Amino acid sequence: MIDITFSNKVVQVEKDTTILQAVALAGRQVESTCGGKGTCGKCKVQIKTDAPYSPTLAEKKFLTASELEAGWVLACQHTLTHNASIRIEEQKDVVHRKTDLAELREIELAPSVCKYPLELERPTVEDQRSDWERLVSALPERGLRFSRSIAATLPKVLRDGGFQITAVLDGHRLLAVEPHDTSKRCFGIAIDIGTTTVVVYLLDMLQGIVAASGAMTNPQQIFGADVISRITYAAGGPEKLQEVQGKVVGGLNKIIKELCQEKNIKQEEIYQAVVVGNTTMAHLFLGIDPTYLAPAPFIPVFQQMVDVEAKELGLYMLSTGRVLVLPNVAGYVGSDTVGAMLAARADHLDGVSLIVDIGTNGEMVLSGKNRILTCSTAAGPAFEGAEIRYGMRAAEGAIEAVSIAQDVELKTIGGGKDRGICGSGLIDAIAEMFKAGVITASGRYASEPEDLEILPPLVRERLRKGEQTFEFVLAWGKDSVSGEDLVLSQKDIRALQLAKGAISAGITLLVREMGISPLEIDRVLLAGAFGNYIKKESALGIGLLPPLPLERIHSIGNAAGDGAKMALLSIIERGRAETMAKQAEHIELSNKKEFQDEFLKGLGFEGIF
Amino acid sequence: MIDITFSNKVVQVEKDTTILQAVALAGRQVESTCGGKGTCGKCKVQIKTDAPYSPTLAEKKFLTASELEAGWVLACQHTLTHNASIRIEEQKDVVHRKTDLAELREIELAPSVCKYPLELERPTVEDQRSDWERLVSALPERGLRFSRSIAATLPKVLRDGGFQITAVLDGHRLLAVEPHDTSKRCFGIAIDIGTTTVVVYLLDMLQGIVAASGAMTNPQQIFGADVISRITYAAGGPEKLQEVQGKVVGGLNKIIKELCQEKNIKQEEIYQAVVVGNTTMAHLFLGIDPTYLAPAPFIPVFQQMVDVEAKELGLYMLSTGRVLVLPNVAGYVGSDTVGAMLAARADHLDGVSLIVDIGTNGEMVLSGKNRILTCSTAAGPAFEGAEIRYGMRAAEGAIEAVSIAQDVELKTIGGGKDRGICGSGLIDAIAEMFKAGVITASGRYASEPEDLEILPPLVRERLRKGEQTFEFVLAWGKDSVSGEDLVLSQKDIRALQLAKGAISAGITLLVREMGISPLEIDRVLLAGAFGNYIKKESALGIGLLPPLPLERIHSIGNAAGDGAKMALLSIIERGRAETMAKQAEHIELSNKKEFQDEFLKGLGFEGIF
Repeated sequence: MIDITFSNKVVQVEKDTTILQAVALAGRQVESTCGGKGTCGKCKVQIKTDAPYSPTLAEKKFLTASELEAGWVLACQHTLTHNASIRIEEQKDVVHRKTDLAELREIELAPSVCKYPLELERPTVEDQRSDWERLVSALPERGLRFSRSIAATLPKVLRDGGFQITAVLDGHRLLAVEPHDTSKRCFGIAIDIGTTTVVVYLLDMLQGIVAASGAMTNPQQIFGADVISRITYAAGGPEKLQEVQGKVVGGLNKIIKELCQEKNIKQEEIYQAVVVGNTTMAHLFLGIDPTYLAPAPFIPVFQQMVDVEAKELGLYMLSTGRVLVLPNVAGYVGSDTVGAMLAARADHLDGVSLIVDIGTNGEMVLSGKNRILTCSTAAGPAFEGAEIRYGMRAAEGAIEAVSIAQDVELKTIGGGKDRGICGSGLIDAIAEMFKAGVITASGRYASEPEDLEILPPLVRERLRKGEQTFEFVLAWGKDSVSGEDLVLSQKDIRALQLAKGAISAGITLLVREMGISPLEIDRVLLAGAFGNYIKKESALGIGLLPPLPLERIHSIGNAAGDGAKMALLSIIERGRAETMAKQAEHIELSNKKEFQDEFLKGLGFEGIF
Repeated sequence: MIDITFSNKVVQVEKDTTILQAVALAGRQVESTCGGKGTCGKCKVQIKTDAPYSPTLAEKKFLTASELEAGWVLACQHTLTHNASIRIEEQKDVVHRKTDLAELREIELAPSVCKYPLELERPTVEDQRSDWERLVSALPERGLRFSRSIAATLPKVLRDGGFQITAVLDGHRLLAVEPHDTSKRCFGIAIDIGTTTVVVYLLDMLQGIVAASGAMTNPQQIFGADVISRITYAAGGPEKLQEVQGKVVGGLNKIIKELCQEKNIKQEEIYQAVVVGNTTMAHLFLGIDPTYLAPAPFIPVFQQMVDVEAKELGLYMLSTGRVLVLPNVAGYVGSDTVGAMLAARADHLDGVSLIVDIGTNGEMVLSGKNRILTCSTAAGPAFEGAEIRYGMRAAEGAIEAVSIAQDVELKTIGGGKDRGICGSGLIDAIAEMFKAGVITASGRYASEPEDLEILPPLVRERLRKGEQTFEFVLAWGKDSVSGEDLVLSQKDIRALQLAKGAISAGITLLVREMGISPLEIDRVLLAGAFGNYIKKESALGIGLLPPLPLERIHSIGNAAGDGAKMALLSIIERGRAETMAKQAEHIELSNKKEFQDEFLKGLGFEGIF
């Protein structure tokens, strides 16, 4: 074992552990979007050791000579053989901003969890009914299933409460029996497991309000930033799968415990959880082998709503409480999308609605004319800031908005120096660059003298020849955290074009399947963090969405999470989620020549609609 | 920690551990019927240590001066403070003898576990159904509940078997999915948890035969021989309860593993278990707080049939398989009695039947005239050989039959020297002593000269004045293992009278409740080991049973275990067990003056019928 020191923390690790693993062991975070493959170049750390060292190819690619000299390495590339001290530039965690529709949509409260305060008759020699029989015969619900774990301690509970107790039911299930009348307290949690971020909402189920909420980076990040890396890791065997499952549950439990402490709520007072996530996240959360989600034909293990006992998953709540995972539609249209459909009321809206949720994957739902059509496409990680030289998540220091007039104007999360650019900033930047003539409709940097001439001087100054191709300086070194110029390369623009081409081609195929023109879409609902931050004009400007009037485009915030809350608070909403998931017709794009054609056409910024 | 040596085994124990606990830790057994209270005097062990030592009151009572001098102590009285070497006269385990009806009663096979070999269609891009949906749509059973643990590994199972698999169903539950066609192998276990002995039968559920069986002393013995001691221990808190539960499951698992090895059966091929036991044993097996079974009004936590997942109990079988515990009727009429009713076909027999199962408790069932009446009475431990000076369980060396003519003739289990007397031997002895005139109808030893005169000389010689009262020598020292005379004291006879009085009073009340005369009973069915070994003439001779013709009295062997087997092999039989348990009218004797009156009358050997 060797000692690895991180500022004020020392961990002992086996020799030949990578720094990235050591960072995880120390409970620290370092950005990594390729899952340790050495292809994103983001996991830079500074190492202090006397051991000789020669950089890997990946390190030579991503690090400058002066960085290498100063001891910077890629954490995923470097294994440790001696004691070392390591400096991480720790990221502040994802910043949460208020959404258009952060308030819970109004629904009629009808949770499946009900509390019944009861005064039971005391047993006598004339009335020797068992404790269980005595209890269930006083309840309105018939045919209650026997629960060994509740029965185990039932005698004490009944007698501690002097036979005054409160029974907690969830449909036909008895969840708990509590001494005395506790009917005034009843909590549940709604969970949104994103590939990048997990969010927990603690709800008061009697009042139908969010009592508290919290979020953190999905701790599965250490297995890779994208779903494929995590599937690949989990496919390594039952132990790996369990490790991945344990990671996300551990993270969720940390949040839930904090929320409980904050609100003075006991673990046993959380009676139900509703979970949404993409299909891979749902499989991993449940500890179900996701292997065959990765290769075509992308087969999930389950599609229906799943309902398991909390203790089976180790989730921090009443151990006999149920954890519901909303149904998914397909391998890449998950319960998060179903949650978004629910929150958007896709089944109740007049006309035709398009829900678009863009992350590493883009999921699209077109509802109307009594049909619900879904598709998904790998958008590539560009929208999440990955595989972009200076890309980053929407965290402090990320450029989130760009405008170009006489010069480039930036808006940065947190307002400090620039660290990189996040997805919404990237779309803004490219839309503005296209509008200003820095790039052409085909995505190439302007190079003809007559094209360059028309650019304002301060803008033209930013367009320069980089190592191989042209690049555009978004932020000069004096304004950046690292002191380097933050640039967008031709490659970065290509990455965005690929993402955008896939999304617009998906929308085109959905519209065609429904037999309408893209302009007949009555509303576009942008879901998720990305949809929340994106400037609508920019999305239209790069041809990502059909050219609809701006007022038809709406951000609906974390609709997936809202759907989870609604399903928690009402069995009617839950039923609607199930119905919509069953009704949905999934259009598999991956094997369609038509999709390839539209995709190629959609790469340009003039759009295909 | 100190070292305690048992012949070839050394265990390390905390200082101040009792020898009885150390014996248990070493996995050894020593007889103890009072649960470590120092009142039975049976846990004699010889200790070799140099530590000074002064005997307790209990030791002075039960051990002779020469025994004390030779280092004999009572294991439960003596705590260890120094390293010591201890000699145990280990008991051979309970001897199992063939019963009248050891063969399984003929029933129509209809197990709830069914296997379906299936050839599934392989998924394609056109058929993206989930693995679960693909599976369940190929099964005849609709509405199958989702199982996370099966789903967790389903993808691999389907693909390992090339989509040829076998689904194992238990009613609406999917228990397992196995690669390839495994429909030719299907096993289950029937378990009879006696307070003294646990028995496991491994059944081939396709053929309906017992493939193997095994038994051992209930390892809960270390918490006391009787149910009350064990309830008292388990009432000490959740950890104690768990300890008691773990003990019996550990013992059962040991047997099941051995049977599996013997028959080359895998743990996962045991799909179901049916368990019977008295109500306390059932509670303890399930880890359910039995505290309120002990005091009046003797309230069980459950009465209905209970069905839990094997992994919840830790039973060695398929972890998702179900463990069914047959229903009980009352706190002291358990699923073992229900099993006996089932095996005896109490609901199908013509006329009136009396089932009697005597152990520490006597359970009686009177069925007929469209009624099933039950009662139970503490018989005292006399019938199991406890609280009798030289009493012992029906193990090797136990006198099991006695006849008196010119002298006393004994039959001993194993045929070797006499070690003590078991329950059936005790009844025989007392019936014969009463017949020969050694004791009077009221249970006193003959003392008048004219009474003594008529006894054969060799018999008269055996009747002598003991320390306080008269005693009768059953076996002379030359024939006994210990070299001591084995005697029956006046106190021993009183103990049997109490037991016998309670049973006969119980029968009287049942008969009266049904409104018939005892002589209208068409058959008496003696269940359990005791019923198997008892000489019917002797049972009639002491007035234990109504004076019916001998041909109306039958031993039905381990009817409880047979009932468990039947319920395992047929859902119809299982349904009958539930119906009978519900139909049964339990007569609580403890608060009835009428019972007290009959009990007092029934103490004499002339009987009350």
